[in-house]
Amino acid sequence: MKRIALFPGTFDPFTVGHHSLVKRGLELVDEIVIAIGINDSKQSYFPVEKRLDAIRSLYRNEARVRVEAYDSLTVDFALQTGARFILRGIRTVNDFEYEKNIADVNRQLNGIETFILFTEPEHTHISSSIVRELLRYGKDISAFIPQTEEQPLNKS
Amino acid sequence: MKRIALFPGTFDPFTVGHHSLVKRGLELVDEIVIAIGINDSKQSYFPVEKRLDAIRSLYRNEARVRVEAYDSLTVDFALQTGARFILRGIRTVNDFEYEKNIADVNRQLNGIETFILFTEPEHTHISSSIVRELLRYGKDISAFIPQTEEQPLNKS
Amino acid sequence: MKRIALFPGTFDPFTVGHHSLVKRGLELVDEIVIAIGINDSKQSYFPVEKRLDAIRSLYRNEARVRVEAYDSLTVDFALQTGARFILRGIRTVNDFEYEKNIADVNRQLNGIETFILFTEPEHTHISSSIVRELLRYGKDISAFIPQTEEQPLNKS
Amino acid sequence: MKRIALFPGTFDPFTVGHHSLVKRGLELVDEIVIAIGINDSKQSYFPVEKRLDAIRSLYRNEARVRVEAYDSLTVDFALQTGARFILRGIRTVNDFEYEKNIADVNRQLNGIETFILFTEPEHTHISSSIVRELLRYGKDISAFIPQTEEQPLNKS
Amino acid sequence: MKRIALFPGTFDPFTVGHHSLVKRGLELVDEIVIAIGINDSKQSYFPVEKRLDAIRSLYRNEARVRVEAYDSLTVDFALQTGARFILRGIRTVNDFEYEKNIADVNRQLNGIETFILFTEPEHTHISSSIVRELLRYGKDISAFIPQTEEQPLNKS
Amino acid sequence: MKRIALFPGTFDPFTVGHHSLVKRGLELVDEIVIAIGINDSKQSYFPVEKRLDAIRSLYRNEARVRVEAYDSLTVDFALQTGARFILRGIRTVNDFEYEKNIADVNRQLNGIETFILFTEPEHTHISSSIVRELLRYGKDISAFIPQTEEQPLNKS
Repeated sequence: MKRIALFPGTFDPFTVGHHSLVKRGLELVDEIVIAIGINDSKQSYFPVEKRLDAIRSLYRNEARVRVEAYDSLTVDFALQTGARFILRGIRTVNDFEYEKNIADVNRQLNGIETFILFTEPEHTHISSSIVRELLRYGKDISAFIPQTEEQPLNKS
Repeated sequence: MKRIALFPGTFDPFTVGHHSLVKRGLELVDEIVIAIGINDSKQSYFPVEKRLDAIRSLYRNEARVRVEAYDSLTVDFALQTGARFILRGIRTVNDFEYEKNIADVNRQLNGIETFILFTEPEHTHISSSIVRELLRYGKDISAFIPQTEEQPLNKS
Repeated sequence: MKRIALFPGTFDPFTVGHHSLVKRGLELVDEIVIAIGINDSKQSYFPVEKRLDAIRSLYRNEARVRVEAYDSLTVDFALQTGARFILRGIRTVNDFEYEKNIADVNRQLNGIETFILFTEPEHTHISSSIVRELLRYGKDISAFIPQTEEQPLNKS
Repeated sequence: MKRIALFPGTFDPFTVGHHSLVKRGLELVDEIVIAIGINDSKQSYFPVEKRLDAIRSLYRNEARVRVEAYDSLTVDFALQTGARFILRGIRTVNDFEYEKNIADVNRQLNGIETFILFTEPEHTHISSSIVRELLRYGKDISAFIPQTEEQPLNKS
Repeated sequence: MKRIALFPGTFDPFTVGHHSLVKRGLELVDEIVIAIGINDSKQSYFPVEKRLDAIRSLYRNEARVRVEAYDSLTVDFALQTGARFILRGIRTVNDFEYEKNIADVNRQLNGIETFILFTEPEHTHISSSIVRELLRYGKDISAFIPQTEEQPLNKS
Repeated sequence: MKRIALFPGTFDPFTVGHHSLVKRGLELVDEIVIAIGINDSKQSYFPVEKRLDAIRSLYRNEARVRVEAYDSLTVDFALQTGARFILRGIRTVNDFEYEKNIADVNRQLNGIETFILFTEPEHTHISSSIVRELLRYGKDISAFIPQTEEQPLNKS
C-alpha cells in the first residue's frame, strides 16, 4: 500500500526551506501532496493560482508530487487525497510547540499521524513571512526561492 | 527498496513511550531496528542483555522489528544494519534542541536522515530516568512499562 | 480569612482543560471566581452571555465557584471580587513566558500573586482556538468540552 | 482541614529566591514543610545538618514553617508529613519542562498536586549552584543568602 | 573608524528597559542611532512625532545618541546612517528565536551584524505592549517609563 | 580607551563556530582575549597546553587576539586582563537561558557586561562535545575545526 503524506501550508511563497523538506520527505514516503490551505480571513501576498502554478512548475518532472489547494480541515483533506500522514518541518522551539498541539489533535480526530523533519541549518532563518517583507521593499529574494530551472529531482 | 529506520536509545528501561513510537513508526517505514547504545562510561540500571531480552520478547510476534546492541557511532551502526533513517521521539523543547543538533550532524556525516514522531500527550512525562527513580524506591512501575502479555502488534 | 482566586480568561469556549484546572484549584483555595474578560476589539465566537450561561450551568452545584464577566484591568477586577490570587494553567513553554511576564507586572502593580497549575498531559493539546477551528468546519467537539450532565464536583 | 505544602529541594544552600517562595507560599497555604532531599550519590557542599540548622534558624519565629530532611521518594514524604501539595518555583523554560514532568508523575502516582509560583524577576538568575561556584572562589555571597537577623515573617 | 549601532524598534512607548539597553550599549559602541520603525499597517498608540520628541528629550545631553524615524528596510536604514551594527535586547526565549532569524537574514542580506544585550532581570517583564495596556485602563505607568528629569548619562 | 572583550570557554576543542565568533567580535571591539577555563574536577579531552598552542597558532597573525588559560572566577580574570566585556555566542534556547543567568550574576558582581553574537546558521549544530564524540570513534573532524593554514584575518 502506497504511503502518501500531505505537506500542508500557506506557501506564500514556497521557499527553499519548503523545497528541501519535500525532497527529503520523498525519501521516506512514496508520494507527497503539497496542499495550499486557503484562508479567506487572511489576506495573501500571492494569489492561490499563482502559488499553485509556481509549485507545480517546480515539480513538473517529479511524478511523486501532487500540488493542490484546499479550504477544508487539514485532516479531512488528507483523507480525501489518500494521505495517512502529514509532513511538517520544524525550525524553532516555537514551531515545535505549535506543531505538537496540532499533531496531537489531528491524531485524536481521525488517526492521521504527523512526522517531522528538521529544517536544515542553512534554512532555519528563512520563512515565507520574511520573504514577503523583503518583497515589500523591492529586495532580491532569489536566494530564498527555489529555482524552476533546476535539475529534475532524484528518484529515490 | 525496503525503508529501514534505526531507533537508537539506552532503553534503561524501555517504556510505554518507546513502545508507542515503535508501533507508530511501523506505519511509516517497513522495518525498525531498535538499537541499544552501549556506553561504557555510564553505569546502567539494567544489564544490556536483560534489556535485549525484554524488548525482543515484547516484539517476538512482530517480524518487522529487530533488536540489537551496538557500541559504535550511531550513524555507522545505522548503515551497517541497512537503515537509511533514524527515528526519534520528542517530548519537550529541551529534547527538540538536542535532537536537532544530533540530526544535523548525522545528516552532514553521511546523509542519514532523522524523522521525528511526537510523543503522545499521555506519555510526555514518562522517561526511563523517572522509571529508574521509582524503581530505586521500590514503587510499582507497571503503568510505565509495556506488558509482554499484550496482543501481537497490528500488521499495517 | 477566605482564600479567593480569580481564574481569568476568554473561555471562548470553556474547555475540558479549563474545567480540570478549576476542579484542581478548588483543592488549594476556598473559592474561585471564573472571570470572562471582555475585549471589545477582538471578535468572539460565542457571545459573552452564552459563555456565562454555559459555565454557570456547569458549576450550578458548586457553591465555591462564581462566574463573572469584566471589562476592567484583571488585577482591578480581582480586588473588586475579594480575590488576592490569580490562578492560571500552563500548557507550553510559550504559555510560560507569557504568564510569567503578566504575573510579574500584576505583582508589582498591587501585590496580587499568581499561582500556576500544570495542564494535565491529556489536555495540553486542547485550546479554545483549536476548538473554534473545529467548530468552523462542523466537527464534533464533545471530547473537548465539559459535559454539564456530569456529577456534582467533589467538595474537598 | 489544614492545607499543607511540601517545598522540596536540595537547598545547598538556601537562597533569597527560596526564601521569597516560602514567604509568598504562606499566603496561599496554612503550613509549609521545607524538605531537604538527601541524595547519597551526589556530593553536597554543606552537610545536611548545617542546612537544617540554617533554615530552621531563619524561620524560628514562623510557626507555620517546618524544616525536615528526607531520603524517601518525595511524594511518599509529602504524605507522611500530611502535605497534599508540593510547592515549586520556576525560573526558566528549562525549569518549567523539568517540573512539569515530575509534577505529572507525582499526580499519577498518588494524587499529590503541585502548584507553582514564579521566581521574582530580581531572583531569576540566582541558583544554589551559582552560589556554590562563588563560594569556591571566596566571593562574598551575602546578597544571595537570606539574613537570619531579619524581622519575623508576617503572619498572614 | 567610529562604531555606530542602530537600535531599531517601535518604541510605542520607549520603556525603562529600552533606556537601560541604550546606556549599556554606549559602553560598547561609539554612537547609537535609535530608529523608530514606521509601519503604516499597524495602528500606533503614540504618534511617531511624539515618540521622537520624548526620546530626543531624554537624550538631549547625550551627544552620542541620535533619534530617527524610518520606513525602509531596517538594514537599508542602518547603512544609510553609517551603522554597521544592530543592537537588540532579549528578554525571553520567544524573543531569542525571533531575533536570531532576523539577525541571520540581515547578515546574509548585506553583512550587518547584530549584537545582543540581555535585558536586566528587573526589566524582563516590561514591554511596550504591557505599558499600553496599563494606559488604556488609566493606570500610573511612571515606574515603566524613563524620566526625562534624570541626570545626563555618563560619558564612558 | 581600548575596548577589550574576554571570550571564555573550555574550547576542548576550539571549533569553526568559536572561530567565527572571534572574527565577528573583532569588528565590534578592539581586542579579544580568548580565555581557556581550567576546571580540575572535569576531565578534558585535549590538555590545556595543546589547546593554548592550537588557538595561538590559529591567531598568530592577528595582533588583536590574545590567548590565555585561567583557573579563577571568570569575572575576576576579565578585570585582570583589562576586559570590561564578555563575549559569548548563543546557539540554542537552552544556551540562552544558561548564558542569561551567568551574565546577570556577572553584571551584579562587578559590572562586567556580556554581549552576545548569534552563532551562524551553518554552525549551530556544532559543539565541542559533538567533536569529541566523533574523535572517540575515529571520525574525520576537519569540517568542524578551523584550519591554521588559512589566510590572516581581516584587520577591521
